[in-house]
Amino acid sequence: MILTVTLNTALDITYRVRALRPHSSHRVSEVSERPGGKGLNVGRVLAALGHEVTVTGFTGGATGRTVRDQLAGTAGVVDALVPVEGPTRRTIAVVDTTTGDTTQLNEPGPAITAAEWSAFQETYEHLLRSASAVALCGSLPPGVPVGAYAQLVRTARTLAVPVLLDTSGEPLRRGVAARPDIVKPNADELAELTGSHEPLQATRNARRRGAHAVVASLGADGLLAHTPEGHWRATPPVRAHGNPAGAGDSAVAGLLSGLVEKLPWPARLARAVALSTATVAAPTAGEFDRTLYESLLDRVTVTAESAAA
Amino acid sequence: MILTVTLNTALDITYRVRALRPHSSHRVSEVSERPGGKGLNVGRVLAALGHEVTVTGFTGGATGRTVRDQLAGTAGVVDALVPVEGPTRRTIAVVDTTTGDTTQLNEPGPAITAAEWSAFQETYEHLLRSASAVALCGSLPPGVPVGAYAQLVRTARTLAVPVLLDTSGEPLRRGVAARPDIVKPNADELAELTGSHEPLQATRNARRRGAHAVVASLGADGLLAHTPEGHWRATPPVRAHGNPAGAGDSAVAGLLSGLVEKLPWPARLARAVALSTATVAAPTAGEFDRTLYESLLDRVTVTAESAAA
Repeated sequence: MILTVTLNTALDITYRVRALRPHSSHRVSEVSERPGGKGLNVGRVLAALGHEVTVTGFTGGATGRTVRDQLAGTAGVVDALVPVEGPTRRTIAVVDTTTGDTTQLNEPGPAITAAEWSAFQETYEHLLRSASAVALCGSLPPGVPVGAYAQLVRTARTLAVPVLLDTSGEPLRRGVAARPDIVKPNADELAELTGSHEPLQATRNARRRGAHAVVASLGADGLLAHTPEGHWRATPPVRAHGNPAGAGDSAVAGLLSGLVEKLPWPARLARAVALSTATVAAPTAGEFDRTLYESLLDRVTVTAESAAA
Repeated sequence: MILTVTLNTALDITYRVRALRPHSSHRVSEVSERPGGKGLNVGRVLAALGHEVTVTGFTGGATGRTVRDQLAGTAGVVDALVPVEGPTRRTIAVVDTTTGDTTQLNEPGPAITAAEWSAFQETYEHLLRSASAVALCGSLPPGVPVGAYAQLVRTARTLAVPVLLDTSGEPLRRGVAARPDIVKPNADELAELTGSHEPLQATRNARRRGAHAVVASLGADGLLAHTPEGHWRATPPVRAHGNPAGAGDSAVAGLLSGLVEKLPWPARLARAVALSTATVAAPTAGEFDRTLYESLLDRVTVTAESAAA
């Protein structure tokens, strides 16, 4: 199975309102909610691609119960979340029905105790023993040490399980130094890590910091990959209009499934770009349009970049 | 005991953010949540005043469970909420920490089935048999007939239980016609009911529509009462700065407790105004500052208005 880790799971709530106006009162016309946090999104896409997936991380409180209830109804995803005392955070996306623009409100997440962090590490090590790959995804909740991902990367490498890291800021900086197999920063995360806003240079720099392969997601421009086997740029054949939420998570699912299936890098990148584009185009945030995905797969342009670049 | 009815209970969530900016992403620095809906607020204040209170209405889903869990920890309040299939709504108050301004997002509430409405009516009639008074508070969730409050007023009157109605729009219009003992509209609700923006005239007009007594809440200007025993204006001695949320519910609790204790109208009005002002001044929305309440009680000005006014 493929393991995904979401230390800061969430109950993702979407509200539709006519137009958000600060300091006034709004009637929400439509409410939807689903399990969230990057690793859960990655897990859902992997399951949709036919992989067996186990999700772990922390969950607690009434919101945590709702997340688990909804996960129980997701085919192909096994729930191995570790219970904690504090409540799982909510994220609220307020969508203006007139313009489609989204305003985001993110709760901070529960404070994790030292005992809870330790319980998680035991579960993680146990699960890794039957994992073909692992994705470490998203922000850290309060209380988890900033070097958490570095530790989790080291554990995976000790057990020879390929590990992909998708986070930002200081947890990314420390995690990269622990030599994960793949990191997948977006343009902002890459610039924050390396100090360079030039993607080619920044991707190379990120690899020098320890990652075996760096795959930078550049939004509608696709992916830029710097790996031991070569350097590529993968570009979608169409520019999708829609909600970019979850597009990066779909790219992670594409890369990880390609790794497990031992696809060559260009095929992994094509899959990641096709999934990502089909996610932006899907009517529901974080889902992907399967027909579009299949039609895009052969039409993603993957070009080799010169090694010097 | 005093019975309060909240057909559209809520989980009231408060978020603190630096400043709400539409179409951007916000980190919530502080989250608090508590049971909401006008009748639950009234019940909490009545219990704090030393009355035995039973709360009823509808509750459902994960949010409903949270509401019931929190109510279980509220001394003096008995939970007689009727379970429904749909989830209790959330309301989100986003407070800008820089200015104190609040942006409100209100979910619509669960759709109530005919069977659920009928189950509620049975519970209501049963509870009324041991009630000394009843307050019917707030909006109607989808599915409940627009004449619901009119029916509930008639049931209370048949059983000779004094009934206070605090709602708005068409449910208020129909409810008033069923001859409740007291209605407590605010200035906007009163204008919507009567078509008049002149409070004295509108209050008189509302009474002609069927209510035995009309107490209009005029925000910082206090209360205006038109009753069979006389006409009064009650004015707070100070202008409180703070959050007006729940001030109207505290006024209802003041009126209802005064009725049950058989206080004369001027004393009921003084209590309602003092509670209301002490609620605006309290640091937590919907709570009241007890010391301030006690110090204000003797200083509220209650003046008789001429009957012709």
